[in-house]
Amino acid sequence: MSVTPQAQLASVLEAGGPGLRAGLERVEERLAEVAAGHGTELHRHASSTLTAGGKRLRPLLVFLCGGRGNGLLSAAVAVELLHTATLVHDDVLDAAPLRRGQVTVFARGGRVAATATGDLLFSRAFAELAAGAGREAVAALSTASSALALGELMQRADAWSDSVSAERYLERCELKTASLFSASCRLGALLGDSDPGLATALAGFGRRIGLAFQILDDVLDVSGPAERTGKHRGADLLDGTVTLPLIIARGRDPKLRAMELRELVTEPAQAAAVCDHIALTGALHEARSVALRHVSEAKASLTGADMPEDRKKALDLVADSVVERYA
Amino acid sequence: MSVTPQAQLASVLEAGGPGLRAGLERVEERLAEVAAGHGTELHRHASSTLTAGGKRLRPLLVFLCGGRGNGLLSAAVAVELLHTATLVHDDVLDAAPLRRGQVTVFARGGRVAATATGDLLFSRAFAELAAGAGREAVAALSTASSALALGELMQRADAWSDSVSAERYLERCELKTASLFSASCRLGALLGDSDPGLATALAGFGRRIGLAFQILDDVLDVSGPAERTGKHRGADLLDGTVTLPLIIARGRDPKLRAMELRELVTEPAQAAAVCDHIALTGALHEARSVALRHVSEAKASLTGADMPEDRKKALDLVADSVVERYA
Repeated sequence: MSVTPQAQLASVLEAGGPGLRAGLERVEERLAEVAAGHGTELHRHASSTLTAGGKRLRPLLVFLCGGRGNGLLSAAVAVELLHTATLVHDDVLDAAPLRRGQVTVFARGGRVAATATGDLLFSRAFAELAAGAGREAVAALSTASSALALGELMQRADAWSDSVSAERYLERCELKTASLFSASCRLGALLGDSDPGLATALAGFGRRIGLAFQILDDVLDVSGPAERTGKHRGADLLDGTVTLPLIIARGRDPKLRAMELRELVTEPAQAAAVCDHIALTGALHEARSVALRHVSEAKASLTGADMPEDRKKALDLVADSVVERYA
Repeated sequence: MSVTPQAQLASVLEAGGPGLRAGLERVEERLAEVAAGHGTELHRHASSTLTAGGKRLRPLLVFLCGGRGNGLLSAAVAVELLHTATLVHDDVLDAAPLRRGQVTVFARGGRVAATATGDLLFSRAFAELAAGAGREAVAALSTASSALALGELMQRADAWSDSVSAERYLERCELKTASLFSASCRLGALLGDSDPGLATALAGFGRRIGLAFQILDDVLDVSGPAERTGKHRGADLLDGTVTLPLIIARGRDPKLRAMELRELVTEPAQAAAVCDHIALTGALHEARSVALRHVSEAKASLTGADMPEDRKKALDLVADSVVERYA
């Protein structure tokens, strides 16, 4: 189960065929152009962030769901720009010094510049998409973009709450993560050579792996190790974000249910101790099962889909990679 | 010259005809629907901001430049949403307690909620426009939206600088203010019943009154009175924003040129004293003349335009209102 991210990507690229690799290379070129083409200020602030790599999972989904088509590149660039915009704003709100091993826009330029840089990347996402796609595609992107912001609002509203249900948690994951995975797949289906009738099925596939992605991310925050996440264990506990492992563990353990986290967890060592407590209840195992079920259902949903086998296989590999990055 | 804003609006509405008033009413209804239609969190944070009024100058320009057409409402709502999004983000960056007499989203909900609310309003702007307009219109909005962010980045880069030229200042005004005025006019021309060949001329009209608007706003920051602006005189000096009055005054007065504002102006009384110093050089008069020239040129640019006289007259009144709010 110890597959490196590079090896995973290589097998996806192999399954996806030569067009996929060329498409992803053009995404990198275009992101570098966007960073360079809007004045020295943006270049200074955004180019390292935009070109620092990352998994490019969302552009990959656009191409794999779309196959071939003129609008796919613009959609692939747009979803990555939108994703990057949210990361830049998240880093402002978290006052984060590093992201993907690079100094953040916030750390280099301060709050004002980083907020404006995020706004600009949002705008460029819509500009890119509008250049290559029609009304339905822009609607799909703006729906996802709204969902990301609504998810953030919901997370803030639920901070430190002791009454967040698993359903409410999943609704938040839908908004803040699954919506853009889902939109990436939908945009691929709308703009590529796939049967447009596949758009709903592919959007559902993206939604499920997005949910799994977020749940596993939240499990990792509790399980660690910190070297994998680049953060202390229990960072979510420290900022009041109530996630599935905690919700499940609270259901199982009255002591945890009675604990006032806001008062008791104010530094990393305390957070690590609560993480251990959560793990002892078996909640991590159960949360992982929820994620794995979404991945299986995502894969199962494609079995009957009328699309080339090689692309279906590549999408299966992407679904597996969401799990394997946490194995 | 003491025309109240209400009287100004009444004469614009009279000149613009009954369709204009109905259109603006539908904008208000739609903004209230957007605030109410995306969950309790957005409603709590954004509804008072979205429905607090404001001059609705940008929607007015859409309707006056467009006349009649199905896409105009979506464009009018979109430009106001985008404008409001930037105000919400500005208030986060300025930690502002009040805006248009209402408690800001920042003051009520904090940084995280206000940043997310701004992002959501951005997204809804594109969603509104995409629902009623095509590719060219979305491109116009995203160009303006990028310009707003670039203007903010430029303002940050130039903070406290002693080498900002009048040209560079005007370039910043183009980006942060004139671009959305210009896009409002262009969207009207693209989506209404105007001759599409008028789009460039009308966009130029919007650009010029946007420039005048920003210059006069910057003059008012120096001239006061504070009751008009709701801020201390010299707020721009206090946060390092170098505007035309200061640039002109520095050119005229070596003492002002030698002054290290960052060190000498750290509280309102000092800012007020520097404002008096700037006024004594005659710089306010000269800056006002630059603005008035843009307004005259805006009006002159419409004289030969092939559009109904009543709408032309209403646009003239809007141009005058930009000046009169400062008279």
